Amino acid sequence: MAIITLTSDFGLRDGYVAAMKGAILSVNPEARLVDISHAVEPQNVQQAAYIVSMAYPYFPRGSVHLVVVDPGVGTDRRAVIVRTDSADFVAPDNGVLSYALHPFLIQPDEQGTPRETGFRAGIEAYAINNPVYWRRPVSDTFHGRDIFGPVAAHLSLGVAPGVLGDRIDSLVALPLLQPAREADGSLVGHIVHIDGFGNLITDIPKAELPRTRPVTVEAGGELITGLSRSYGEGRDLAVLIGSSGYLEVACRNGSAAAYLKLRVGGRVRVRFLSDE
Amino acid sequence: MAIITLTSDFGLRDGYVAAMKGAILSVNPEARLVDISHAVEPQNVQQAAYIVSMAYPYFPRGSVHLVVVDPGVGTDRRAVIVRTDSADFVAPDNGVLSYALHPFLIQPDEQGTPRETGFRAGIEAYAINNPVYWRRPVSDTFHGRDIFGPVAAHLSLGVAPGVLGDRIDSLVALPLLQPAREADGSLVGHIVHIDGFGNLITDIPKAELPRTRPVTVEAGGELITGLSRSYGEGRDLAVLIGSSGYLEVACRNGSAAAYLKLRVGGRVRVRFLSDE
Amino acid sequence: MAIITLTSDFGLRDGYVAAMKGAILSVNPEARLVDISHAVEPQNVQQAAYIVSMAYPYFPRGSVHLVVVDPGVGTDRRAVIVRTDSADFVAPDNGVLSYALHPFLIQPDEQGTPRETGFRAGIEAYAINNPVYWRRPVSDTFHGRDIFGPVAAHLSLGVAPGVLGDRIDSLVALPLLQPAREADGSLVGHIVHIDGFGNLITDIPKAELPRTRPVTVEAGGELITGLSRSYGEGRDLAVLIGSSGYLEVACRNGSAAAYLKLRVGGRVRVRFLSDE
Repeated sequence: MAIITLTSDFGLRDGYVAAMKGAILSVNPEARLVDISHAVEPQNVQQAAYIVSMAYPYFPRGSVHLVVVDPGVGTDRRAVIVRTDSADFVAPDNGVLSYALHPFLIQPDEQGTPRETGFRAGIEAYAINNPVYWRRPVSDTFHGRDIFGPVAAHLSLGVAPGVLGDRIDSLVALPLLQPAREADGSLVGHIVHIDGFGNLITDIPKAELPRTRPVTVEAGGELITGLSRSYGEGRDLAVLIGSSGYLEVACRNGSAAAYLKLRVGGRVRVRFLSDE
Repeated sequence: MAIITLTSDFGLRDGYVAAMKGAILSVNPEARLVDISHAVEPQNVQQAAYIVSMAYPYFPRGSVHLVVVDPGVGTDRRAVIVRTDSADFVAPDNGVLSYALHPFLIQPDEQGTPRETGFRAGIEAYAINNPVYWRRPVSDTFHGRDIFGPVAAHLSLGVAPGVLGDRIDSLVALPLLQPAREADGSLVGHIVHIDGFGNLITDIPKAELPRTRPVTVEAGGELITGLSRSYGEGRDLAVLIGSSGYLEVACRNGSAAAYLKLRVGGRVRVRFLSDE
Repeated sequence: MAIITLTSDFGLRDGYVAAMKGAILSVNPEARLVDISHAVEPQNVQQAAYIVSMAYPYFPRGSVHLVVVDPGVGTDRRAVIVRTDSADFVAPDNGVLSYALHPFLIQPDEQGTPRETGFRAGIEAYAINNPVYWRRPVSDTFHGRDIFGPVAAHLSLGVAPGVLGDRIDSLVALPLLQPAREADGSLVGHIVHIDGFGNLITDIPKAELPRTRPVTVEAGGELITGLSRSYGEGRDLAVLIGSSGYLEVACRNGSAAAYLKLRVGGRVRVRFLSDE
């Protein structure tokens, strides 16, 4: 039974998500529909990109991941299918797959704007352009319902991506910040997501934090010493390795984001103390 | 596999929707349940009516649409099944199907209150009154769980509506405003819904806006000239044809509702300029 | 087709619920997933316990109920499976099943803290400790995805609970307040939940309110006389028997909680008037 996940900034009040689901089920009544999130901030492509990347790896191989955060709907931005070894993605070509496809995309400059970039072997990309597989008439403002949804449904039925669009060799990528080592040996990372608990999730991977050396973390003017193993174990403000394997700043009985007044893009510095 | 959609004002926090789904699955464990919205404002029958009407047409023929916004639960208001050529509806008889059944209902006066009205050929209506198909005991305050849900489930199993209730020849309808042509040739429509992006959706259909004549739209004291084709293309404040085929006022990077301080029921005037 | 319900405090924005669902579907692709609530206040074990207890009874016999409100994740708190005659529960052993298992648990003192307690015949409990059935690697902060979800999925496939963990004879229970009869004959109950409409749901069961004697209810300094049968029938402030069979204080066109400034744990007094 084919699984299609759905991510959007439509919210759950207006029935837009349901219209998209109806369009999918009209093509493939057997599709299993699972929401990843429909509470992405309106038009926040980076947030959607992050959320999808954190959730999709846990779905069975071959699932189709539909991501519709699409400020450019109705303009000439491309719509794409990306097939990886483990999953299919269907989305506007605006960078919303940047985190999920991170190992494959050739990165634009950190300081740049989203731009078209090449990608490495391991994925195939297609520009959706075969209207035979769309719902008609196609609205200029709701491609989720009229194009992306039906295309995802056809993929879930086994239609080859090459039938739905033409193969392409570039994709738009967001300029993702990367943690950087500074002259004094400290590592400066960035907040990539703030979750509903107010936890600050950074781009500093577990591998950068050797278990044998104590660390101090600076975030929002506060110094936090040592890594906690879990939220329950931490003191009020704690640093730990989150569930996706990246350094996270958390506040035991509240929101670290509110307490530290930090936002996505904010900096977090890790100092590695000598253990001698 | 039978599809049942669900719309309510229950919210998603308290488990009321889940209790209703459990009651449905206890009757038909194979039903496919798809939420349209559970974030209807408490007891806002008009809002629910609009949302259902925009989402239900995209579901496969024969789907059952369960709508439980029911301020009169436990009073003597009727509960109804309405069968159309494309779908079944199960709802309290309080006007919550007014938009979905608009082509069939004989309209009450615009200025009136919701009232019982006749309907044209093309639909069948039934007053739900056969307790054999209800969950027992029936709570006085939660017919969604005890009556509407089980009835929808039985419909999805193929039970005939005439077994679940007696045929009736009237339904309660909301007095829906209609766009009106004024003496100066302009068209005055109304805001029927404000979506989560703050877009103002009106009752002015695409057909009233000929492509060959430029228009100016007045809304909330602002003048907006020309129709945009998409959100991405518009200037800050834009007028376009929304995904359901009605005129919409949108604000590119924000909420048109907040900017224009307009609410549902507010007026929007279209002036047709001479194109000569 | 096995049903698994899900309750958590994860919220619906961040994709955590979806990651947990993906982990479940990776074990049992045929599982039917139904959300009870993911809007439990962060770490509010009592609220989750109440919500689950109100929704689970309406699901088909044999459903698996997964409840992940887990402030102690990553500490040494136990994870448990509880099998009753009608359902399986999978949850941290922190009292989050206290209302659902209320008939079986031996109650701690009302004034106490959550503590380990015995239980009566009719349920079986198991400490989840067989990592063969977990997702690997196990994160220290997200057992919902890595332990609870996969364990629920294996239960839904028919794996015996004794294979997933060792039988135990105690469970942690919350100290649930009980309504008490006072010297003047009045009954003092407590608000156990405030729903999204602002209705105040108490722990006073229908059985304590004989139909033949009029009652007066004191709540938040207001006196309310007589029981209403439904929300629609009530005056502005009304007392009625809610859909789960307990006394509820409601406000017809608004929130009783806001009007009366009452919170969970607040007291509600019922006076039984002489009917002679």
